[in-house]
Amino acid sequence: MWVNEMKEIFKSKCSTGESILDQFSHDESHHKWSKPQIVFFAENEQDVVDVVKYAHKNSIPITGYGAGSSIEGNPIPVKGGIVVSFQNMNKIIEVFPQDMMVRVEAGVLYKDLNNELRRYGLFFAPDPGANASIGGMLANNASGTRTVKYGATKDNVYKANFVLPDGTLIKLGNLARKSSSGFDTLHLMIGSEGTLGLFTEAYLKLAGIPAEMSAAVAYFENVNDAVNTVSNIIMSGLSPAAIEFMDENVIKMLNLSDNLNLNEKPCIIMEFHGDNKIILEEQIKSVVSICRDNGMINFDSGVGIDERNRIWSARHKTYEVILRTNIGKKAIIVDAAVPISKYPDIVMFAKDATKDVTGYIFGHAGDGNIHAVLVADKDNSSEWGKLEVANEKIVKKAVEFGGTATGEHGVGIGKSKYLVSEYGENSVNLMKLIKKSIDSSNIMNPGKIFI
Amino acid sequence: MWVNEMKEIFKSKCSTGESILDQFSHDESHHKWSKPQIVFFAENEQDVVDVVKYAHKNSIPITGYGAGSSIEGNPIPVKGGIVVSFQNMNKIIEVFPQDMMVRVEAGVLYKDLNNELRRYGLFFAPDPGANASIGGMLANNASGTRTVKYGATKDNVYKANFVLPDGTLIKLGNLARKSSSGFDTLHLMIGSEGTLGLFTEAYLKLAGIPAEMSAAVAYFENVNDAVNTVSNIIMSGLSPAAIEFMDENVIKMLNLSDNLNLNEKPCIIMEFHGDNKIILEEQIKSVVSICRDNGMINFDSGVGIDERNRIWSARHKTYEVILRTNIGKKAIIVDAAVPISKYPDIVMFAKDATKDVTGYIFGHAGDGNIHAVLVADKDNSSEWGKLEVANEKIVKKAVEFGGTATGEHGVGIGKSKYLVSEYGENSVNLMKLIKKSIDSSNIMNPGKIFI
Repeated sequence: MWVNEMKEIFKSKCSTGESILDQFSHDESHHKWSKPQIVFFAENEQDVVDVVKYAHKNSIPITGYGAGSSIEGNPIPVKGGIVVSFQNMNKIIEVFPQDMMVRVEAGVLYKDLNNELRRYGLFFAPDPGANASIGGMLANNASGTRTVKYGATKDNVYKANFVLPDGTLIKLGNLARKSSSGFDTLHLMIGSEGTLGLFTEAYLKLAGIPAEMSAAVAYFENVNDAVNTVSNIIMSGLSPAAIEFMDENVIKMLNLSDNLNLNEKPCIIMEFHGDNKIILEEQIKSVVSICRDNGMINFDSGVGIDERNRIWSARHKTYEVILRTNIGKKAIIVDAAVPISKYPDIVMFAKDATKDVTGYIFGHAGDGNIHAVLVADKDNSSEWGKLEVANEKIVKKAVEFGGTATGEHGVGIGKSKYLVSEYGENSVNLMKLIKKSIDSSNIMNPGKIFI
Repeated sequence: MWVNEMKEIFKSKCSTGESILDQFSHDESHHKWSKPQIVFFAENEQDVVDVVKYAHKNSIPITGYGAGSSIEGNPIPVKGGIVVSFQNMNKIIEVFPQDMMVRVEAGVLYKDLNNELRRYGLFFAPDPGANASIGGMLANNASGTRTVKYGATKDNVYKANFVLPDGTLIKLGNLARKSSSGFDTLHLMIGSEGTLGLFTEAYLKLAGIPAEMSAAVAYFENVNDAVNTVSNIIMSGLSPAAIEFMDENVIKMLNLSDNLNLNEKPCIIMEFHGDNKIILEEQIKSVVSICRDNGMINFDSGVGIDERNRIWSARHKTYEVILRTNIGKKAIIVDAAVPISKYPDIVMFAKDATKDVTGYIFGHAGDGNIHAVLVADKDNSSEWGKLEVANEKIVKKAVEFGGTATGEHGVGIGKSKYLVSEYGENSVNLMKLIKKSIDSSNIMNPGKIFI
């Protein structure tokens, strides 16, 4: 049996211990666990090449696994086989301060990386919320609150090493800040969720830690006013580093659980990065004026990191408080994005679609990215079924609005069924053709993206 | 013969007139002209589908042609066949001001588009210098002076319609500002130079015309000081909208031809966009301080559009003055990019490599993109040969530095030979596999990108 052969060949780099198999049979999502037959702990790039060659020779499913923080079942080995863990490939290989660039192994964790980069005055900007691995962020094109200014993961990679399904190691991209050279295979692989191969290392684009930052929160009578303000701020050229929306239900929950005494109204929370305080104070003035034009009823702002942390504390607590308030329950995290002009509509639609379930609506408004955390007892199939219906309604509506079925979590297991409605059958057929050309025996993370 | 059959089928949409064939046998580059057998003037998307289907059925080479402003031979039909002109597909279909987005046909010209967008307070930021077509910009991933802030063409497209080599029409991307849904086939097609199919329309991402702008020029004793300043400014988080380098030889030429009385020293020219004058004045203060730290010997700056135009006038004249100073000669335009830290080295290397030819060095320094216009009599093979040697030396060195053989002009004809040294053979083989899967009979712009 191949599992025993693998153990003989790769020895202590493999494990078939039950607790290990369990650990690598799930991510942070609600999706059904599925065990691999063996977990391979890669220590370096050559290990990845070797194990992929082995899988290829024997037509065994093989799935990469970073930090397991994804929430769409992206690394769950639904067809069993080999899971390749990158947890031991966690070296920050070299920092290039003058180029604002870092070379890392795929298993480096996002937060560890930024801790290390702090002393260079630099940071890797796409923040996925969770402490994801860089390889996982590449695989899923992760993004988060700061994407509105700094882009998603795909916008912050110069070059990467990548192992194709037959074990061939290739280089994607180059170290120049721009290029028109050849097919953009780097961006084909970013976001391909391990279905075309595995990232082993990357040169990431960094941003300078801003000399100063500021924050502001503005409350509005209704969702429409709040969200119109977002598009006005984006259009003004003010370039917020983050601009988030929170529905009044989220604030009610925060007040109830933590006695925060916040305004129970829809709000937007912003962050600005700048070179000096005068610039930031000028920006706040412009923001106030735009918010006032849109019927703002309450405003708070401040310059400096302490003020920024004070204003953002409610937003940062949100997910943790939702979990704390709903112990023992599971969550479906809705993730969809629409053109900015449709953001008020999708938020209103989501409020209506979730009115019979426990749901909290917020999102990265500056990107048109809506999230809703829907909570229920997963063993209660009628309750859980309502969550699934609500999720499906919101995602379908986002696609109808010309948007996307997933703004930042990836297709994984839960979003496959929307792919054709989003892109059309011809376009999905092109994706399938590419998949088949590159992974003809369908060993790389099978059962994902495509139905 | 198929040409006659095409004329029968497509009637007045085709032309085989000699002057038409001549017109579509070249672009703005020095590359050898090559005539198509027929030119097809598409009037709408269905026309493109029909003509591609015809070419596919009959295995006839087919090459898209926008404004012909490319400078690497990208649309020259080197294998003859059909050229599809997009000049009649020049409709701006719809502007979406609230989404800062526009939907255009592929034949719309860059400058026409921005003229129309002005009244919405919006602009399409990637400026290729020439009055390129949007389809051509998509095909070649064009960029220019403002890419340092706003990105290249690839960073400013939400969605596009694209005709595959068998005539299948597909949709690429979606209208959300970010997405993690499926393979990024949009970015695979952008920059594929018409070798995987043809763009028919696109939804482009727009930027707000800034309320205020400023400019500054700083002169330095040597190239090293000038270029180090560039990376310090980028690292500072000041976010210039443009930051260009000009070598002293360019300035000598400008002084000589137009009596400009400029400092004959290496310089950097910058532009900043902002919400108000106070912010811009603060930025200029920060810029002065960084320039001073790097040994600046002279500085000029101003806030407002008139000041901006005054300071940039020398840079804007550069190419025109080079042509005027060298009437009757042809030019090779060197285009390569390196990591910022290598920019001083590549500029010094280029100065040395061009010391025996007439050459002018400048570039989009903020992106590490170096240009040199090398001028000679093309009929004098020994003179012209020297240009080719100098070009090759600079491009090879840029690739050695971890950079790219083309920052913004595309591979076209002249850069094919560097592809393997840039990406490695395995990576180029992946590109070829993709080409073969999608265009198995190799009809789309054959003879380009790959040797």
